[in-house]
Amino acid sequence: MAKFVYSFNEGSKDMKYVLGGKGANLAEMTKIGLPVPFGFTVTTDACKDYIAKGNVIDPAIIDEVYEHLAELEQVMEKKFGDIDNPLLVSVRSGAPFSMPGMMDTILNLGLNDDAVKGLAAKTGNERFAYDSYRRFIQMFGDVVMEVSKSKFDAIFDGQKKKAGVEYDVDLTAEDLKEVIKGYKELYKNELGVDFPQEPKEQLLAAIQAVFRSWNNERAILYRKMERIPDDLGTAVNVQAMVFGNSGDDSGTGVAFTRSPVNGEKAIFGEFLVNAQGEDVVAGIRTPKPISEMAESFPDVYKDFVKTAEILEKHYKDMQDMEFTVENNKLFMLQTRNGKRTAAAAVKVAVDLVEEGLIDKETAVMRVDPEAIDQLLHPSFDADAEKQAVKIAKGLPASPGAAFGKIYFTAADAEAAAANGDKVILVREETSPEDLAGMVAAQGILTARGGMTSHAAVVARGMGKCCVAGCSAIHVSEADKTITVDGKTYKEGDFISLNGSTGDVYEGEIATVAPELSGDFALIMSWADGIRTLRVRTNADTPADAKQAIEFGAEGIGLCRTEHMFFEEERIPAIRRMIVADTEEERRAALDGLLPYQKGDFKGIYEVMEERPVTIRLLDPPLHEFLPKTEADMKELSDKYGIPMEKLEKANIDLHEFNPMLGHRGCRLAVTYPEIAEMQTRAIIEAAIEVKEEKGFDIVPEIMIPLTVMDTEMKYVRDIVVATAEKCKEEKGSDIKYLVGTMIETPRGALTADQIAEYAEFFSFGTNDLTQMTFGFSRDDTGKIIKVYEEKGIFKDDIFGTLDQDGVGQLVKMACDKGKATRSNIKLGICGEHGGDPRSVEFCYKAGLNYVSCSPYRVPIARLAAAQAVIKNK
Amino acid sequence: MAKFVYSFNEGSKDMKYVLGGKGANLAEMTKIGLPVPFGFTVTTDACKDYIAKGNVIDPAIIDEVYEHLAELEQVMEKKFGDIDNPLLVSVRSGAPFSMPGMMDTILNLGLNDDAVKGLAAKTGNERFAYDSYRRFIQMFGDVVMEVSKSKFDAIFDGQKKKAGVEYDVDLTAEDLKEVIKGYKELYKNELGVDFPQEPKEQLLAAIQAVFRSWNNERAILYRKMERIPDDLGTAVNVQAMVFGNSGDDSGTGVAFTRSPVNGEKAIFGEFLVNAQGEDVVAGIRTPKPISEMAESFPDVYKDFVKTAEILEKHYKDMQDMEFTVENNKLFMLQTRNGKRTAAAAVKVAVDLVEEGLIDKETAVMRVDPEAIDQLLHPSFDADAEKQAVKIAKGLPASPGAAFGKIYFTAADAEAAAANGDKVILVREETSPEDLAGMVAAQGILTARGGMTSHAAVVARGMGKCCVAGCSAIHVSEADKTITVDGKTYKEGDFISLNGSTGDVYEGEIATVAPELSGDFALIMSWADGIRTLRVRTNADTPADAKQAIEFGAEGIGLCRTEHMFFEEERIPAIRRMIVADTEEERRAALDGLLPYQKGDFKGIYEVMEERPVTIRLLDPPLHEFLPKTEADMKELSDKYGIPMEKLEKANIDLHEFNPMLGHRGCRLAVTYPEIAEMQTRAIIEAAIEVKEEKGFDIVPEIMIPLTVMDTEMKYVRDIVVATAEKCKEEKGSDIKYLVGTMIETPRGALTADQIAEYAEFFSFGTNDLTQMTFGFSRDDTGKIIKVYEEKGIFKDDIFGTLDQDGVGQLVKMACDKGKATRSNIKLGICGEHGGDPRSVEFCYKAGLNYVSCSPYRVPIARLAAAQAVIKNK
Repeated sequence: MAKFVYSFNEGSKDMKYVLGGKGANLAEMTKIGLPVPFGFTVTTDACKDYIAKGNVIDPAIIDEVYEHLAELEQVMEKKFGDIDNPLLVSVRSGAPFSMPGMMDTILNLGLNDDAVKGLAAKTGNERFAYDSYRRFIQMFGDVVMEVSKSKFDAIFDGQKKKAGVEYDVDLTAEDLKEVIKGYKELYKNELGVDFPQEPKEQLLAAIQAVFRSWNNERAILYRKMERIPDDLGTAVNVQAMVFGNSGDDSGTGVAFTRSPVNGEKAIFGEFLVNAQGEDVVAGIRTPKPISEMAESFPDVYKDFVKTAEILEKHYKDMQDMEFTVENNKLFMLQTRNGKRTAAAAVKVAVDLVEEGLIDKETAVMRVDPEAIDQLLHPSFDADAEKQAVKIAKGLPASPGAAFGKIYFTAADAEAAAANGDKVILVREETSPEDLAGMVAAQGILTARGGMTSHAAVVARGMGKCCVAGCSAIHVSEADKTITVDGKTYKEGDFISLNGSTGDVYEGEIATVAPELSGDFALIMSWADGIRTLRVRTNADTPADAKQAIEFGAEGIGLCRTEHMFFEEERIPAIRRMIVADTEEERRAALDGLLPYQKGDFKGIYEVMEERPVTIRLLDPPLHEFLPKTEADMKELSDKYGIPMEKLEKANIDLHEFNPMLGHRGCRLAVTYPEIAEMQTRAIIEAAIEVKEEKGFDIVPEIMIPLTVMDTEMKYVRDIVVATAEKCKEEKGSDIKYLVGTMIETPRGALTADQIAEYAEFFSFGTNDLTQMTFGFSRDDTGKIIKVYEEKGIFKDDIFGTLDQDGVGQLVKMACDKGKATRSNIKLGICGEHGGDPRSVEFCYKAGLNYVSCSPYRVPIARLAAAQAVIKNK
Repeated sequence: MAKFVYSFNEGSKDMKYVLGGKGANLAEMTKIGLPVPFGFTVTTDACKDYIAKGNVIDPAIIDEVYEHLAELEQVMEKKFGDIDNPLLVSVRSGAPFSMPGMMDTILNLGLNDDAVKGLAAKTGNERFAYDSYRRFIQMFGDVVMEVSKSKFDAIFDGQKKKAGVEYDVDLTAEDLKEVIKGYKELYKNELGVDFPQEPKEQLLAAIQAVFRSWNNERAILYRKMERIPDDLGTAVNVQAMVFGNSGDDSGTGVAFTRSPVNGEKAIFGEFLVNAQGEDVVAGIRTPKPISEMAESFPDVYKDFVKTAEILEKHYKDMQDMEFTVENNKLFMLQTRNGKRTAAAAVKVAVDLVEEGLIDKETAVMRVDPEAIDQLLHPSFDADAEKQAVKIAKGLPASPGAAFGKIYFTAADAEAAAANGDKVILVREETSPEDLAGMVAAQGILTARGGMTSHAAVVARGMGKCCVAGCSAIHVSEADKTITVDGKTYKEGDFISLNGSTGDVYEGEIATVAPELSGDFALIMSWADGIRTLRVRTNADTPADAKQAIEFGAEGIGLCRTEHMFFEEERIPAIRRMIVADTEEERRAALDGLLPYQKGDFKGIYEVMEERPVTIRLLDPPLHEFLPKTEADMKELSDKYGIPMEKLEKANIDLHEFNPMLGHRGCRLAVTYPEIAEMQTRAIIEAAIEVKEEKGFDIVPEIMIPLTVMDTEMKYVRDIVVATAEKCKEEKGSDIKYLVGTMIETPRGALTADQIAEYAEFFSFGTNDLTQMTFGFSRDDTGKIIKVYEEKGIFKDDIFGTLDQDGVGQLVKMACDKGKATRSNIKLGICGEHGGDPRSVEFCYKAGLNYVSCSPYRVPIARLAAAQAVIKNK
């Protein structure tokens, strides 16, 4: 017959799926001889059996529980419900994965009208015993039997009033006996039966309550969100109680084997004399640093330090432990791998390698790529942030921390920054015209737009702190104020932004600069040794490119050429091009842009030296470049003699209902081939000149955006190749170049085999691909996505982590089809997903050659790429 | 050895791929004993061989040509280049498929300085002989040797000036000899060799020129557009010349065996005495009705009628023939199946069945489904249209013809129509609020928007004439005028629209009402007997539904519920719903809409009786329903006490950058479940009531739009099912219903297996699916698509014919995946493509159960569905 109950001396840490995480570790600690209060674990199989039988616990399992209970009584030399020496137990849930939402803990089970007397005698503290009893009745009534907690509270508060006391602790044992009386009456009235005096009955009810809680709503939702299978079930741990509140030779504590904050190798924790864990949680008493335990309990502390060392060596990782001291004797209640900051993760991993406990691959796996983002940006001083006044919460759009004076236009922000002020740029939402203001600002705050809005994308690219979509604030750009909850902040007022959490604070909060320690560099070098996926960056300027190289980028995967057009001295030329009536006028305007573009590319090539550089031809709809305000139109009109009506007409003609699906991408090159010609010429001539001047052998990769079919790709490719060959001939150069395309429309992916006839590389533009595959515009659906996440429909942020079921299917299909046509086709990704660890793993598995992401995510991608190799070995 | 040349008596009509269409028919006529001037065909294989050898004609093929030439001389008892009795030939290209773009015809090949004299003698017309010679040199120089035509023209015009004459025909034989001298000099100067006097040399050069022209740019483009394979090659027909201009006992004609206009069984054609075909083409003389031939050439005419009968019986189809009479002797030069109007196609097909020449399946194949659209709408009187003043051309957005006074707002149009005026509604573009105006109008004209813009879609749905995207006209809605080419038309002026061609005319043009003759009904009934695909309709009103049933619809595949919301008495309720702050307010507003919706559905169910009805839950973005103008907002504000700021804020809050990818479809049901609840209640209660009142067993199909994933489908389905079950319980009904989804996002298709867990049917919304798969918004990309078509990038209108390579891949994938999960899943299509014949065939092959289209396309779909079965047997 199957075994449904394991004593702690029967299991091991490898039995997580049977005993749950907690049970497996209790068994392991027991196995290696550490002092663990004895007990047993009812398995996840028992839970599954219970559910399968329609929430009925099998009699055979009950028998098995009772057998183990008898063993426990024997080991502990105590008896359930005994008036002199009662056995009390804790009942705790413990699933294979840590899982909030389920029933957690019931303490002191076994108390009844007799046992409470035994507990009073044993602890010499009658008040404590009755307080434990009343707590147990309340918890049992509330959690196990589902009697509303407020009804218990009413009785308790009534007694306080009656006794004329303000605090719980002022109630005497006699008061508590009154409370217990009231609780029992309530229990009977609500449930029609007496509160069970039989401890075995209590135990079975508690076990079943844990099993039931596996399927409560919160637990189901949590599993859905975390993708934990619904059929794992939970185990239940039944453990003899030990009492840290047995006098001044007792106590309770929690500790880490190393600092979870910075990774330093030293016991780090808290301890409380003469107390139970519950007291700490309830906030009745403030725990002391663990160092005080060393003073007051020198022998027990030594014991504990030794135990901690054993655990760390045994688990080969930093441990997070719970323990109790009862009459100078140490008991371990829990151990698990400790949570830690990114800085601690890096240091612990490196130290453990140096201590010979783990190898480099394990060390690389120990650092959460997403978390190291913390290390690359300034952060708030933690204490200062705790004390600051939080005024709103938006989306954590770009990590880091910043404070500054608020300004509402790019020009104002620039002026203030030029004046030496620290500036926060506040906008309803940003547009490409705000770029200079964003550069000048410490951080950006927007009221609208999601995680991939313009503000978010650009800020992340700059490594600049940004809180986006902060809908609680009302931005009046006219009044230059923000209003939130009735309070108004005006231009020049200080606010602080935490871009890693989305929190917005009033006033200035001190920031701490990032420090990329030697350990960080070391672990990254290990990651580089493991990974096979190349990591490139999305960079539009030499400055971005330089930053990215410092972060380890091996090339540029996406250089957007349109950002270059927004600079003040260039935008008139592009505007003239847009309103041109004839191809000749258009060419004249483009000729004016050529030297600028060539200069841009030369700057980038010089920084990148011979690393690959992928340059995307003009992508955004032309109307983005047009002046929108009367004043801007007037200026342009006066300066170049373009009639105002023409500018107005251009704005009307170029207006689009759905610009995302409009006149953009390579559609611009098809309708205005001369734009593609000018850009190709700039790309090729710059490469030729840099080769001549610096000797770098540049092989530009010219990327055609938004391709939907082979005929379109061929048409634009032909323009590019003809122009490039002409440039080469003019300069007598034999420079090489590649022509490829973004795959960012579903059709591009579906017909990738046909498109690959004319494309030497594919770069997946998964931002647009996600938008079109889902039909979700990232600019418009922030609110909807929030509702979808709340309702459990979306499990992940689709713009943050690549949707493998849908979008991923297209990516895989396109990779396979591309390779079928052209076996050596180069495959990369340049959407935001290129810097997301889970998406990086997907890219590795899909057979991509590289990922490309914003400079600040390059280290994350490098680490994730290494982990992908290790995970998929 | 392969055979590269066939005499006309060696081939047959089944050798189209070898001899080309023209050559095969010449051989066939020869075979069945009809009088065809003798000749031979150089095969497509010779062409392919020529191309494969790098544009070199193989000596063996030359030998074969000469052998057949010798045979031709023998048969004709004439000799190439003979001064007394010269053999002259025509050289004509003839590919397997009719293909403009290639070299067409060279006449009178064989003329040289000697033969021209023979021709003069033979025809007794020296001027004609020399004119033929100079034409031949010019055509040979231009077409075969690529000497610019303008250079020949300059010489010719010089001679006219010199002779002091105005018209070509006034040049004498002597003048023409001068021209020939000039031409020969030009030829020598340009090409460095003399004009070839050796006819064999002329012949080989002409044959090679035809071969070369297979790969000229226009021909390649044409093949690309028409999807004709590039490797077919063309044949060349070499045929002895006969001379219709040999005197008054000669002539030339073209004729049909039946009327190509109405299908009447009688010879229909034109004839010209003493003329060559070229004279007709050149417009020098106007041909006479064929009846005159019967008078002037009674014997030859009898011969011809008999020949025509033989041909029709032989080809079992109406024939389009070219013939020449030389000295009272009939020669057939060409026969082919004749092009015809839809009316003629129907009548000829039915008549041929009745005459026992073809079976019903063949008859059904003989009618072009796309063409029968002509039969369902009014059309212009052809003569009246020819004489009218055309002022612009837009897109033929909805077929038919209409005239009326122009009005610029829906309200004005309604008022004028109520006054008894015929009205054309003119708008920059229409929106749902124009609906009443569109109903009142005879036709709709818009300046913007493509074939699937709102105006186009709605007009087609109504079967109402519409010209859309007519960008040449400038609409001033403020001034109530349209301006085109400097001319202004004001409110109340008459214009006429041809929705089948996109032409816009000034003034009134008389229209002819459609007549669905008995023949039409008969052939449609044959089609119904063959097809397996069901044909449903897209209909939102009882009137539409009724119209569709008259056209043979078997159910409703798409009933949009939002159109119902735009009616004047309802829109306030939906607006109150949108600006509601709480769920309760929203529910209150929705309660106000419930009786209307229920009434709508009852009306539709009553018309449809027990036919299936698919009702789609609310789909469009909510902002479409909001009042946009100050006045409308004020009215709503006053009437319901909604503060103006709230309405303004709603307009701002609901503004979207890309509404197509925004808050719409089932996203509305997820964020406001109460909307889906109200609609479900209306659908189910209406069905229950109609069952009670009329006894119809309605099984409503409730369709959830824009689904992207299983969890979303389940969420909305749960709402629908819970509500429906509640309604059934309340009414004690056991009514049945289905819940399914639109597949209209790429992700919906990619994950159809998962979605099918919760969907009992799929309906492909290929409009949106096309937009998202391509990333082409149909509202914005009209101009771009035009450029794409011009440049040969798009072969078809992607919104008119389903893109099988891309979108079709998704449809097929979704069908397969849907069936894998749920083998009996019902599959349909309700996008515009459901009424496109090629798309209907695709749907048949993909295994769909039905197509759904606008009422006026139902007959087209029925016919196309029958043809799909026959074609894919």
